[in-house]
Amino acid sequence: MAASAPVASNSNVMDMVKSFATQTDDFLRRFLANVHDAPPLLMESISYSLFGPGKRIRPALAMLSCRAVGGDVTLALPAAAALEFIHCFSLVHDDLPAMDNDDLRRGRPTNHKVYGDAVAILAGDAMNTMAFELLATQVPDPVLAVRLIRELGIATGAAGMIGGQVLDTCYPAEKSRGTQGSLEHLQHIHRMKTGALINAACRMGALSGGASDTDLQTIDALGRAVGLAFQIVDDVLDATSTAENLGKKAGKDAAIGKLTYPTLLGLDKSREHLAQQVQIARDMAERLGPLAEPLAQLVVELAQRDH
Amino acid sequence: MAASAPVASNSNVMDMVKSFATQTDDFLRRFLANVHDAPPLLMESISYSLFGPGKRIRPALAMLSCRAVGGDVTLALPAAAALEFIHCFSLVHDDLPAMDNDDLRRGRPTNHKVYGDAVAILAGDAMNTMAFELLATQVPDPVLAVRLIRELGIATGAAGMIGGQVLDTCYPAEKSRGTQGSLEHLQHIHRMKTGALINAACRMGALSGGASDTDLQTIDALGRAVGLAFQIVDDVLDATSTAENLGKKAGKDAAIGKLTYPTLLGLDKSREHLAQQVQIARDMAERLGPLAEPLAQLVVELAQRDH
Repeated sequence: MAASAPVASNSNVMDMVKSFATQTDDFLRRFLANVHDAPPLLMESISYSLFGPGKRIRPALAMLSCRAVGGDVTLALPAAAALEFIHCFSLVHDDLPAMDNDDLRRGRPTNHKVYGDAVAILAGDAMNTMAFELLATQVPDPVLAVRLIRELGIATGAAGMIGGQVLDTCYPAEKSRGTQGSLEHLQHIHRMKTGALINAACRMGALSGGASDTDLQTIDALGRAVGLAFQIVDDVLDATSTAENLGKKAGKDAAIGKLTYPTLLGLDKSREHLAQQVQIARDMAERLGPLAEPLAQLVVELAQRDH
Repeated sequence: MAASAPVASNSNVMDMVKSFATQTDDFLRRFLANVHDAPPLLMESISYSLFGPGKRIRPALAMLSCRAVGGDVTLALPAAAALEFIHCFSLVHDDLPAMDNDDLRRGRPTNHKVYGDAVAILAGDAMNTMAFELLATQVPDPVLAVRLIRELGIATGAAGMIGGQVLDTCYPAEKSRGTQGSLEHLQHIHRMKTGALINAACRMGALSGGASDTDLQTIDALGRAVGLAFQIVDDVLDATSTAENLGKKAGKDAAIGKLTYPTLLGLDKSREHLAQQVQIARDMAERLGPLAEPLAQLVVELAQRDH
């Protein structure tokens, strides 16, 4: 949308997201086609998870954040593809028997159910590695490439997504449940486990679009709010939706006594928190101006999603 | 051994390797000290494997390759540290029950035996990610940083180390044993599984030292020979050594009918192949001149190691 353009309707923005998903998948396919001499079984396992059904939210956030600061959306394609590699690697590893032990993901058998644990571990490893290789080979400007690799590395690593997964997997919920510090603890886990990569999507997109320092700060505030909002929706859906709707087991959080927004605050308070985060994101988008309209619309859509 | 330079004795070069190991460990410790807000359990699991006993061969190859092309060895420290991250991540994942299922590594319980499978998987993931983050943050020249990330990514990924592990884990030995193509198949696995990262160590070291294209080609030939030599020694040791010597189970390859140099060619022929590769590496080192002396000595030492 340009300066004088009409407000993007929700259906418009979801069409844009679909188009971004196709562009990202195409970009990833071209990248994988240039990997020679890899075992076919490994490449099949990677493709099974990478090109499965999914909304490609992180690519969409990257590309709309790029646009929000005045860049052409295609400038964010390497960032979008790298983010999807990392997201997908984390899903494959999180589903493993040693971790969340999930049989179903996006309505299909999980990677290790199809290819076995060994190949699933190695497919995840390869996607983790390839995310960084992709940025180093597909971003023409080395200064930008290094910056994006740094952002993605920090968001993914021990103090980001992977660290959050350790907290989520290894620190029993009962340790923090019901105490005064619980909400803080919960938000800390989420900021790392889900929030860091979502915020990185916004930041990397903005950096790809040549964001000023001021715009990057605004995008960062937006990205943090979107990250929290995203996780609250996830928790609420797990508590209220059906497996059919989710494409994975529902009600699992409560069943295993996991610390979530609904188990901690109840559904109403959770939805209040969600509305607050959406409002922050919309305020930040407004600060960025009309080019950030579709980004604001996407945030609203994400908050309303039912699967 | 070189023309005008004093002859590096074997003990000299192993002293250098020890000093490089200390410098690499210090570099890694400083890097990890700057990771804030990571779960202590994850950092402990990473440190357990990263700073365990080990020769730090890849750092030594990188630093001596840097020197071989005229660079100060410390220029290769980021490459050395990143290589050790990747090597260590691969050991932690390879030892998992779903993979090689090893209880013992370098004479100590494997990472998952101490921290559980979930943390071991995530510690490996974090080290994989941090290798690239380290290069992006610790190499001052962005053009060199991007080049090193590309080299490391390709050597680690689906067509490198990880792909080699898939071949090794998932393609049963009986499929290729005894056929004409076996040696080729064996070398293909090894070139990917072990050779790619060892060659990358040499190449990344040389690039860090500002190698010319010609020198890089020579280092590449040397690195390929060292990679093959290294694996032959590993196979021969598994067939001939004791668990006490190795710090891990011995005779395991034969027990599981794995395709190795000794099972395929017998011990004598394996040692012949080894001698050939060592000679190639020494020839290439000679071509590089006197500064490559210690590198040549290290190759000889590696070929003679008994654990």
